[in-house]
Amino acid sequence: MELVTISDIEAAAKRVEDVAVRTPLLLQTWDPRGTLWLKPENLQPVGAFKVRGAFNAIAALDDAARARGVIAYSSGNHAQAVAYAAQRYGVPAVIVVPDVAPRIKVEATRAYGAEVIEVPIGEHEGKARELAAERGLTLVPPFDHAAIIAGQGTAGLEIAEDLPDVDVVLVPISGGGLAAGVGTAIRARCPRAKVIGVEPALAADVADSLRQGELVRWPQADRARTIADGLRSQPSELTFAHLREVVDQMVTVTEDEIREAVRVLARKARLVAEPSGAVTTAAYLFHAEELPPGKTVALVSGGNADPALFAGILAG
Amino acid sequence: MELVTISDIEAAAKRVEDVAVRTPLLLQTWDPRGTLWLKPENLQPVGAFKVRGAFNAIAALDDAARARGVIAYSSGNHAQAVAYAAQRYGVPAVIVVPDVAPRIKVEATRAYGAEVIEVPIGEHEGKARELAAERGLTLVPPFDHAAIIAGQGTAGLEIAEDLPDVDVVLVPISGGGLAAGVGTAIRARCPRAKVIGVEPALAADVADSLRQGELVRWPQADRARTIADGLRSQPSELTFAHLREVVDQMVTVTEDEIREAVRVLARKARLVAEPSGAVTTAAYLFHAEELPPGKTVALVSGGNADPALFAGILAG
Repeated sequence: MELVTISDIEAAAKRVEDVAVRTPLLLQTWDPRGTLWLKPENLQPVGAFKVRGAFNAIAALDDAARARGVIAYSSGNHAQAVAYAAQRYGVPAVIVVPDVAPRIKVEATRAYGAEVIEVPIGEHEGKARELAAERGLTLVPPFDHAAIIAGQGTAGLEIAEDLPDVDVVLVPISGGGLAAGVGTAIRARCPRAKVIGVEPALAADVADSLRQGELVRWPQADRARTIADGLRSQPSELTFAHLREVVDQMVTVTEDEIREAVRVLARKARLVAEPSGAVTTAAYLFHAEELPPGKTVALVSGGNADPALFAGILAG
Repeated sequence: MELVTISDIEAAAKRVEDVAVRTPLLLQTWDPRGTLWLKPENLQPVGAFKVRGAFNAIAALDDAARARGVIAYSSGNHAQAVAYAAQRYGVPAVIVVPDVAPRIKVEATRAYGAEVIEVPIGEHEGKARELAAERGLTLVPPFDHAAIIAGQGTAGLEIAEDLPDVDVVLVPISGGGLAAGVGTAIRARCPRAKVIGVEPALAADVADSLRQGELVRWPQADRARTIADGLRSQPSELTFAHLREVVDQMVTVTEDEIREAVRVLARKARLVAEPSGAVTTAAYLFHAEELPPGKTVALVSGGNADPALFAGILAG
């Protein structure tokens, strides 16, 4: 299987530089250890790192494919990212969402000019593939795609540029596109640094898979237990092949740790993180003994917390 | 009276570049007008733009003055900024705070290694001047000082670099150090842009003063009514002289508008802003008809919202 290379990520960086935010590394001066930097990808347009991959995938299309348009299936941040990136490039976009998706996310996706099609949950991937074939649309998958992995990897390139002597990079893992890309960039640029994947203990299928040396599937119902709703997917063969190469270690965090990390990020870092975006901070705060010491970057992957849920966590 | 110049601000930029965060401009893609960029100074160490001035003032001291130490009086972000900047430069710091200051801010200031002295409210400035004379400490005032104004101005320099064709810059005004510095930078680098000061209607002494052409003093009790506790100060002769030169217009916002802007910043921009930091966004959202059209930067000055207050606003 052909893996994404540092050259692919460098090429992606050129494509996304005018549209994605060059997020700074934020040293957390309240932390007594003094070794925590946050990479606030929640500050990207649409509130998540997902714009990096979406921009890269759409920018790489030829003119004919752009004219026909793109299609994506997602109930979350990927839907908005593809809609936004398509709008920026003037490319028509269709987004297939499960009909249980929060209204606020559906409306936000529509506001970026996409045609939104709602289908019963579980059917959205199939419907997207069917429509892609019917209408000649290019499918932009959420992670199982070299251009997506390379795009997400640009966040890793920036970490390496801003903190070349980084010791530890903490990345959340769900479908694995982000960790695959960031890990590939860090391996190439900061070979001494450890790349550590973080999962909720309730959706720790990747920790399980890496331990067993092969993809282990956890039932959807099990993965759905975590509050971190962006971390309920599982890797594809392509992303898992990357993870085996570039992830040094996994850490799993509890639901209580995730909630506390959301509070700490709001109060001390002044960032609104969704639970999925807070797992890396939870790992730093509550699993120090499992982690190598030294300069640590925690990637805050997104900030699309449901307002009521977020207010509830803050008050809790 | 000698005003701070763009050269002073350029010199300050060199001094603060390794310690203050180079905050990005964040285009707000959810905004239907598509003309709002946020400058998230709440992401600075200690959560406010204040570190820029504090670093610049301390960096400018000679070795003898550094060895003796610095002193500041403040119940708010300036206290933590001076404590943090002094710690970074290895300079002893004394901070005089009113004994009604929130415990969380007192502890944060102490955590940066400062000696914290609590005195009855209203006496903290006097006590600081007394201690400065007794111990030979250099007083670092919150705004009435050229080095502080120049330091705060570095935020304006960054706006001009990142968005050279900016049309409107919205800056909160309290003591006026930030607006004086940012306005001076914008005048020099983007002479076509309008610099617009924002105040709570309940503490609109600067709007009043600029209208009347002289400093008008509002009673402390009146200014204390606003929820924006960082905007209850009033300019000095020095900062007001700058404001007369560089502020094109004032906008005042209501308490409800401030609260709604805090909510919008959290939900759409994924930023935790204190009420004072949200007034510029409130002006953009609710006073469009008073503002010139075009590319607008709203400076989000700080993020040290009291956790309970912030949770209450989000839930409200």
